[in-house]
Amino acid sequence: MPHVTMPQGLPPGTPGLMMYRPETGRPISQLVEVLMRGPSSLSRSDREMMAAYVSQLNDCAFCVNTHSEISAQQSPDGRALVDKVLADVKSAPLSPKLRALMNIAEAVVVSGKNVTPELVEAARKEGADDTDIHDAVLTSAAFCMFNRYCDGMDAVVPEDPQAYVGMAAMLIREGYSTCADGH
Amino acid sequence: MPHVTMPQGLPPGTPGLMMYRPETGRPISQLVEVLMRGPSSLSRSDREMMAAYVSQLNDCAFCVNTHSEISAQQSPDGRALVDKVLADVKSAPLSPKLRALMNIAEAVVVSGKNVTPELVEAARKEGADDTDIHDAVLTSAAFCMFNRYCDGMDAVVPEDPQAYVGMAAMLIREGYSTCADGH
Repeated sequence: MPHVTMPQGLPPGTPGLMMYRPETGRPISQLVEVLMRGPSSLSRSDREMMAAYVSQLNDCAFCVNTHSEISAQQSPDGRALVDKVLADVKSAPLSPKLRALMNIAEAVVVSGKNVTPELVEAARKEGADDTDIHDAVLTSAAFCMFNRYCDGMDAVVPEDPQAYVGMAAMLIREGYSTCADGH
Repeated sequence: MPHVTMPQGLPPGTPGLMMYRPETGRPISQLVEVLMRGPSSLSRSDREMMAAYVSQLNDCAFCVNTHSEISAQQSPDGRALVDKVLADVKSAPLSPKLRALMNIAEAVVVSGKNVTPELVEAARKEGADDTDIHDAVLTSAAFCMFNRYCDGMDAVVPEDPQAYVGMAAMLIREGYSTCADGH
């Protein structure tokens, strides 16, 4: 049960929190819209997979369930790749560039200081450019915020996996920015 | 030296990163504007002190220096209280309500799951309402993002304390939202 009294009818997890306090929900939803759905050299599915992986490292069940489902629904292979990443990232068949960016994201979870010049250079060698590197750092940092926000408010976390299927489809269809506007 | 090539003339730290990538800088700066300067039962100085304290827990020198200076410049006592908080929070003369909210913020740094019903109840007993509790959780979560973003990009960190004085005065005068607009 959330630590604050929320109006009836709000969605579970972070989307419900964004609607609860739209003054902060609006910029937060715009940030995730740019990172997950704006122009990028990574597919939307790959970016959502990075978000799910960071959320797993932070042990946030709602965000893992939501973003792995959004990744799966936007992948031609469905849940195959994201499930492998969540089960054992080392053996998952990621492209070398995505793997190098995931290594940067993983470092950020512990501390920004863990992003070494070697990790950045390794990503460049696999074709990552400045924007890819920037966005991997900020995506991980942003989900370090979302995960703490979601669990720190004790937001509602549906246990039925089916609950995430419809929510993911809605977010793919309408985008994140609609969260805080209550559409 | 930052991990990406930044144009000449950008400010140091996170403000420079916001201008480097305004698509993400804009929502981020709007978020911090609401949390640090929007309507709240806490003074602006107290909220900046919370940001500085979280940044210290995350060992982010730029954010500690910036937000402690912004707190000091908005306090009738200057640096007296914020310096005590950064030196030894337990003995710092905080109001009971602010102390209880700082305890929530400190818990979030480790994990959202560390925000226990007992911590929330303790804040309520000292007069904190739902918005105070929400904002303490989100402020800490947001600075867990900012700290990782700043250090993860290896942003420029001025060593001269005087560099923060002018930057703080500018942010107090113009607000955070101007960061990403390059004003």
